[in-house]
Amino acid sequence: MTTLDPASGHVVLINTFTVEPERAEELLAALSEATRETLSGLTGFVSANLHLGRDGRHVTNYAQWESQADLDAMMANPGAMAHMQQTAAMAIAFEPLYYDLREVHDSPDS
Amino acid sequence: MTTLDPASGHVVLINTFTVEPERAEELLAALSEATRETLSGLTGFVSANLHLGRDGRHVTNYAQWESQADLDAMMANPGAMAHMQQTAAMAIAFEPLYYDLREVHDSPDS
Repeated sequence: MTTLDPASGHVVLINTFTVEPERAEELLAALSEATRETLSGLTGFVSANLHLGRDGRHVTNYAQWESQADLDAMMANPGAMAHMQQTAAMAIAFEPLYYDLREVHDSPDS
Repeated sequence: MTTLDPASGHVVLINTFTVEPERAEELLAALSEATRETLSGLTGFVSANLHLGRDGRHVTNYAQWESQADLDAMMANPGAMAHMQQTAAMAIAFEPLYYDLREVHDSPDS
C-alpha cells in the first residue's frame, strides 16, 4: 500500500502512456516487470503505482522517488534505460512529468 | 494522508492541467477551495491530491472516488460544474482520465 503525504518530500513522477487498447495489458506487464527487476532496487525508489485507463487507451505510472538526484540517476541507469526503451516502443506516446505533492484532502469516512 | 490500494476498488480520476506558470498557484488554490467547499461533501468522495509540476506548467489532481456512478453524479452537480468551469478557465488545457489502480510496488524501506 502506498501513502501520499506532502510532508514526505518525495518527488512524484507521473508517466502517462497512450496505447492501442490491445497493447495496454502488455505494457502494464512490462512496467510491472521493470519495477520488480530493476527500478525497485535502485537508490531512492519509494513506490510505483500502475493504473489502467477505463478508456483502454492510457496506462499511467504514479511513482514516488526520494529525490530528483535519485530520479536523474535512474534515468541514466543502463538497465532502467533498456526497460524505458522497451515500454516506449509499446506506446503511441508517453509524457513523464515531475511533481511535488502540495495538498491532500481526505474524506473522514475513507 | 491518502492510501493507494488496488483492493479498495476506487475509481481514480487523474486530471492534468496545463497552465501558464504565473497561474499555477492560482489554479492550485482554486482546486483546493473547490475540494474543501464542494467536492469533499459529495457522495463517494474519497480523496483529492493536488500536485504542482516541477516545470511550473502543470497542475495535476489525483482524486479517488468510490464508484463511477458517484463520479458521474459529481460531474452533473451544479456546484461542482461551476468550480470546473472556473478552474478550466485558468488553464490552457486539461485532460481528465479515469483509471483503475492495478498494481502497487513499494520499497521495503519506505
